[in-house]
Amino acid sequence: MDTDQMHASGHNHASGLTHQDASGRARMVDTASKQETERVAVATGVLRMNADTLSKLRAGQTPKGDPLVVAQIAGVMGAKKTADLIPLCHTLPLTKADVELVIDESVPGVRATATAKV
Amino acid sequence: MDTDQMHASGHNHASGLTHQDASGRARMVDTASKQETERVAVATGVLRMNADTLSKLRAGQTPKGDPLVVAQIAGVMGAKKTADLIPLCHTLPLTKADVELVIDESVPGVRATATAKV
Amino acid sequence: MDTDQMHASGHNHASGLTHQDASGRARMVDTASKQETERVAVATGVLRMNADTLSKLRAGQTPKGDPLVVAQIAGVMGAKKTADLIPLCHTLPLTKADVELVIDESVPGVRATATAKV
Amino acid sequence: MDTDQMHASGHNHASGLTHQDASGRARMVDTASKQETERVAVATGVLRMNADTLSKLRAGQTPKGDPLVVAQIAGVMGAKKTADLIPLCHTLPLTKADVELVIDESVPGVRATATAKV
Amino acid sequence: MDTDQMHASGHNHASGLTHQDASGRARMVDTASKQETERVAVATGVLRMNADTLSKLRAGQTPKGDPLVVAQIAGVMGAKKTADLIPLCHTLPLTKADVELVIDESVPGVRATATAKV
Amino acid sequence: MDTDQMHASGHNHASGLTHQDASGRARMVDTASKQETERVAVATGVLRMNADTLSKLRAGQTPKGDPLVVAQIAGVMGAKKTADLIPLCHTLPLTKADVELVIDESVPGVRATATAKV
Repeated sequence: MDTDQMHASGHNHASGLTHQDASGRARMVDTASKQETERVAVATGVLRMNADTLSKLRAGQTPKGDPLVVAQIAGVMGAKKTADLIPLCHTLPLTKADVELVIDESVPGVRATATAKV
Repeated sequence: MDTDQMHASGHNHASGLTHQDASGRARMVDTASKQETERVAVATGVLRMNADTLSKLRAGQTPKGDPLVVAQIAGVMGAKKTADLIPLCHTLPLTKADVELVIDESVPGVRATATAKV
Repeated sequence: MDTDQMHASGHNHASGLTHQDASGRARMVDTASKQETERVAVATGVLRMNADTLSKLRAGQTPKGDPLVVAQIAGVMGAKKTADLIPLCHTLPLTKADVELVIDESVPGVRATATAKV
Repeated sequence: MDTDQMHASGHNHASGLTHQDASGRARMVDTASKQETERVAVATGVLRMNADTLSKLRAGQTPKGDPLVVAQIAGVMGAKKTADLIPLCHTLPLTKADVELVIDESVPGVRATATAKV
Repeated sequence: MDTDQMHASGHNHASGLTHQDASGRARMVDTASKQETERVAVATGVLRMNADTLSKLRAGQTPKGDPLVVAQIAGVMGAKKTADLIPLCHTLPLTKADVELVIDESVPGVRATATAKV
Repeated sequence: MDTDQMHASGHNHASGLTHQDASGRARMVDTASKQETERVAVATGVLRMNADTLSKLRAGQTPKGDPLVVAQIAGVMGAKKTADLIPLCHTLPLTKADVELVIDESVPGVRATATAKV
């Protein structure tokens, strides 16, 4: 199964490199003085696979829907671990995390939409 | 900064869907009877960004090299958390994990090569 | 040591299945619009064991009290990991977590009361 | 949803209290000199709920089967975190972890069988 | 490399033992009724090593600065795991965590200043 | 409570800087070709405090022994998280981890001996 063409687009546009200080040293941004605002990030991607794998996935999915549910759970649990994975990221109290996965036979593959809300 | 065209190619070619049993239920593969063999997986990707961001990254990097080192560390620590992120994956005793990041101005962006050895 | 008859009773009575959306897909509940309120959950249980094991536990406990303290610590640390263990649960900033363990020779066993406050 | 009557029965019968030393101090057992053997633990339980909740669960499950799959994944991922939750437990390289969940309307509820192999 | 003479001094002066209740039982402090205030803790230390090791560290550092950046990242990531390491500590939403490392040839060694803000 | 004079001495004497490659880049050491040997590391330290705090600790400890048991558990659980805290460290299957804490009124304080075995 090949992963292909993941495009991420969010509401977190940094005009500079915010995790670096004046001397170029990496740092965690100090958020103590930031006002709490609601922020939402959405990322979409396409997981391409050959038509045969997709039909096995679909067949496996018919009775119980497992593979995509497992992937959805993995995405939500991974989102909750963001601060473990991005070294200089703050521990964020997510109010929502979701991954939607839709089979698209025209790809052939699965379209994923991930949403995180803080 | 846009993430673009991540291609993963490894030594783990599944001809079927190994994490599903005969009835389509997701499951962790039983490895008790598997012989221990040395396995290596290599994945490569390109992180594209506009030339201006790349030159800021490079400038920030000159005195201390932070941003790419932080990314390299994040990759190695993330590799050690694979079993936390992939729900049905075994806890694997990695003998090596590495991420190499090379600035490529012809992209413009950063070429990444990740290696994991079990 | 057999675990027997754990009864949980809390303040979190769901009349429906709140972690499922209209189409039956599992999801994390969006709490962005929820008002912050103080919530307390209390669960109680009884760990039965034969009288001989209980008297060893009590004997081991006399000089240093270790086994029950270790169990209490395990309960508090486990409470802090709730969001790691319940896939669609939010990361909750607990203001209190406690486990009280009382030896009850009439059982014979240990009565546990766990309290979590958000 | 009330949790009721969880019975655990495994192959780990301790005749004494192995995590305590001669002076009663809690300790991690030293396994350096233990031979590696294959060990399997099986635990079973019943999650009782009222018939109405069970029929909602079943209805929600029809199209996608989510709730039980989420519970199964939670069980497998929880098994991989055993050493995080049991303070004096070793980090164990599980070769298999599985949770089987079967709806039983005669309960009414869900019968669970959890298996771990080292 | 020997670790020597770590001195910690912070703003968290406990006049009593706050993690113990009236009966001497360890417990997590209940913070539900505490007002949110901004708190800052600063700890400093010196990592002594022989001059030869320091010059290797410095030489290794010239082109890429890795060892000290890795240590800085380790400190920040460790700070985010405080509640995992201190059993009765609350999960704290850090607004800042930083580790500054300065080579001091007069030691010879590295001076570290760690800052955490809640 | 001040932390003072922690001396670590182990069996892991690096004559060079093993986590750096020829070009000075930080890396995880490849252990695939290393033979498995039994290794033991022992570290000792002294936690100084004023006599008044020590007597409170001792008083609190009399009935249940909590504070030192909590510290002992914290040490063992922290040892199991070494690979989470030291970025380029391998995930090590500890066969033993222990922390011994002894009150020493001549300090006044607590003497700690930590042992890890792989």
